[in-house]
Amino acid sequence: MRDVAVIGIGMTKWGELWEKALRDIYVETALLAIDDAGVDHIDSMYVGCMTSGIFVGQEHLASQLADYLGICPIPACRVESACASGGLAVKMGFIDVASGLSDIVLVSGVEKMTDVGGDQATYALSTAADQEYEGYHGITFPGLYAMMARAHMHAYGTTREQLARVAVKNHHNGSLNPLAQYPFEVTVEEVLTSTMVAEPLRILDCSPITDGAAALILCPLDMAKKLSKKPAVKITGVGHATDTIALHSREDMTSLMATEKAAQAAYKMAGKKPADIDLAEVHDCFTIAEICVIEALGFVPKGKGGTAAESGLTAHGGKMPVNVSGGLKAKGHPVGAIGVAQIYELTKQLRGEAGKRQVEGARVGLAQNMGGSGGSTLVHILEVQ
Amino acid sequence: MRDVAVIGIGMTKWGELWEKALRDIYVETALLAIDDAGVDHIDSMYVGCMTSGIFVGQEHLASQLADYLGICPIPACRVESACASGGLAVKMGFIDVASGLSDIVLVSGVEKMTDVGGDQATYALSTAADQEYEGYHGITFPGLYAMMARAHMHAYGTTREQLARVAVKNHHNGSLNPLAQYPFEVTVEEVLTSTMVAEPLRILDCSPITDGAAALILCPLDMAKKLSKKPAVKITGVGHATDTIALHSREDMTSLMATEKAAQAAYKMAGKKPADIDLAEVHDCFTIAEICVIEALGFVPKGKGGTAAESGLTAHGGKMPVNVSGGLKAKGHPVGAIGVAQIYELTKQLRGEAGKRQVEGARVGLAQNMGGSGGSTLVHILEVQ
Repeated sequence: MRDVAVIGIGMTKWGELWEKALRDIYVETALLAIDDAGVDHIDSMYVGCMTSGIFVGQEHLASQLADYLGICPIPACRVESACASGGLAVKMGFIDVASGLSDIVLVSGVEKMTDVGGDQATYALSTAADQEYEGYHGITFPGLYAMMARAHMHAYGTTREQLARVAVKNHHNGSLNPLAQYPFEVTVEEVLTSTMVAEPLRILDCSPITDGAAALILCPLDMAKKLSKKPAVKITGVGHATDTIALHSREDMTSLMATEKAAQAAYKMAGKKPADIDLAEVHDCFTIAEICVIEALGFVPKGKGGTAAESGLTAHGGKMPVNVSGGLKAKGHPVGAIGVAQIYELTKQLRGEAGKRQVEGARVGLAQNMGGSGGSTLVHILEVQ
Repeated sequence: MRDVAVIGIGMTKWGELWEKALRDIYVETALLAIDDAGVDHIDSMYVGCMTSGIFVGQEHLASQLADYLGICPIPACRVESACASGGLAVKMGFIDVASGLSDIVLVSGVEKMTDVGGDQATYALSTAADQEYEGYHGITFPGLYAMMARAHMHAYGTTREQLARVAVKNHHNGSLNPLAQYPFEVTVEEVLTSTMVAEPLRILDCSPITDGAAALILCPLDMAKKLSKKPAVKITGVGHATDTIALHSREDMTSLMATEKAAQAAYKMAGKKPADIDLAEVHDCFTIAEICVIEALGFVPKGKGGTAAESGLTAHGGKMPVNVSGGLKAKGHPVGAIGVAQIYELTKQLRGEAGKRQVEGARVGLAQNMGGSGGSTLVHILEVQ
């Protein structure tokens, strides 16, 4: 397999983008990535999107977006793995370049979630759970993650305040990110008194409904070095795994087996261990998710995730900065775009272009993107050359 | 890139499978393919499905199916390109094996279309067109293909009876296929007097609403020769292209540019020309589609597609047999499964296992699978070794 690098990145401000269609958001970010890479053509494209069918009544999405970007007849592939659709698009783009089939590949993630009402958005998201065994019985994602939180609190003594600390940290980081949907700080007190959603999770424990996209250009590493003067960022590790889609089928509701397996594969491929990672972007769809994820990634021992934000370990400036972009919590959660936006952030950081939120001396970054209650996970490791 | 072969195939009878869920249909065919290949594990899986989100309220589909097949934590990827989703899954499985990332890959296509009413099914399918510029104005696929038919009749003198001959041929072929949804013959008279859908297309010009799946096992060619005593079937050509998703954006409504481009790429990769193909499975979602497709594939000159079924050229026993399986018309049209089922049929034929519908001496087969009104197309060429 050929070495693969990220040569271009693009992202625009996330939020409730009433004035833009899905195709507009997509094209904006794709053009930014193409411009950043300085390439004059594209060989193929991948787009991660969870459910444009339900959100905007549009399938056949990759063809539509190739059309609107004006790059037909190039091959265009849409991939779906719920909220891990973006990470999956990154993996497929990686394989396409690594195999030698394509040289310059456009990888995007996009979701337009605000064209439907809140109840319909909740329904759309619930299709990432097992519809027949979870959805039809009334459980939605806040409820599933609330059960994971309760189980973690029961097994490991994780506290309600520790959950809040994750939101406080990520909102602080998001306040430094001009593209974040909610670029403001929140306090522990505000989280603890915010509207209850599913006990013990309150509204400030939950990531929002967001419109947004992000885009990358991938190419062979040697080509990246020739085409661009920016530091070459190589994808050194790729991990992808699945778990039972239904939470009730798992032996332990606090363990994310797909994240553990995907991380093991990515660490092995990259020849790295958790301590080698300088910063990580992880899937904090709910505050409890970040806690379980950093355990599964091996950043902290099992059961100790709750103390990480509280102790400052995962803070910007801490030993293991997590979600310096603001994470899903503050940056926003356009579900299909997350895995691509994580690579956008890592590339900014590894190039030293992250401005106020720059992690000094960052050379190795990890992105973890998961679908549903952890039924699928992608882990990528990036290193600046 | 490594050489890739089809080592296992699986398919069950298509139709209105009221008693089975999507996951049941999927697992049945996947187990048949695994059994046919004789492999004891899977490294990764791909599933093509157009819109399980709208049809059965289920996204995160690949994880669910990996779960139900009992093969978690293996990587699982769902791809979508409307009715070309199955062909796209074949391509992605091909790249995964060719790149060296995976050895044994399960590739499936599936759609469960009858859990919703006819109006909802029509809506679901319409999401393969440009929703904002075609769907919202009331056009659905029979209408789009009717316009293509009218344009072809106007430009090339194609007749109403010539359209009917495609249906007659494919129903005759389907009558020999025990897995077909409609395994019976129809006459020209029956087609011409069947219910009008969108002038000039009548109900017997249209492929049906179908539940169904098909599955393949792909692996490196040298591994296939070691693992299986069955004739090795190599994927020698892969082509993939896009066109404008909206019909009104094209210069010529009778030309399928994505099919032309995908075919050119596949012929070039395989070192073949149209005359080298012994049989083809093509995307006859409507009778006019087969006529336009065989022109785009170069089997007949532009404008001469209408005469092919009438003259017997594309009949079983003709010089260029097309859709000996019965095609979408008689075999059925579970949209996400088509591209995989085409490879199932070609593999049966190239192995000499096709029974009553065997094409004698078949050594090179071509599959053409397209999405929407031709906005995306996959072409694969297979050769028995």
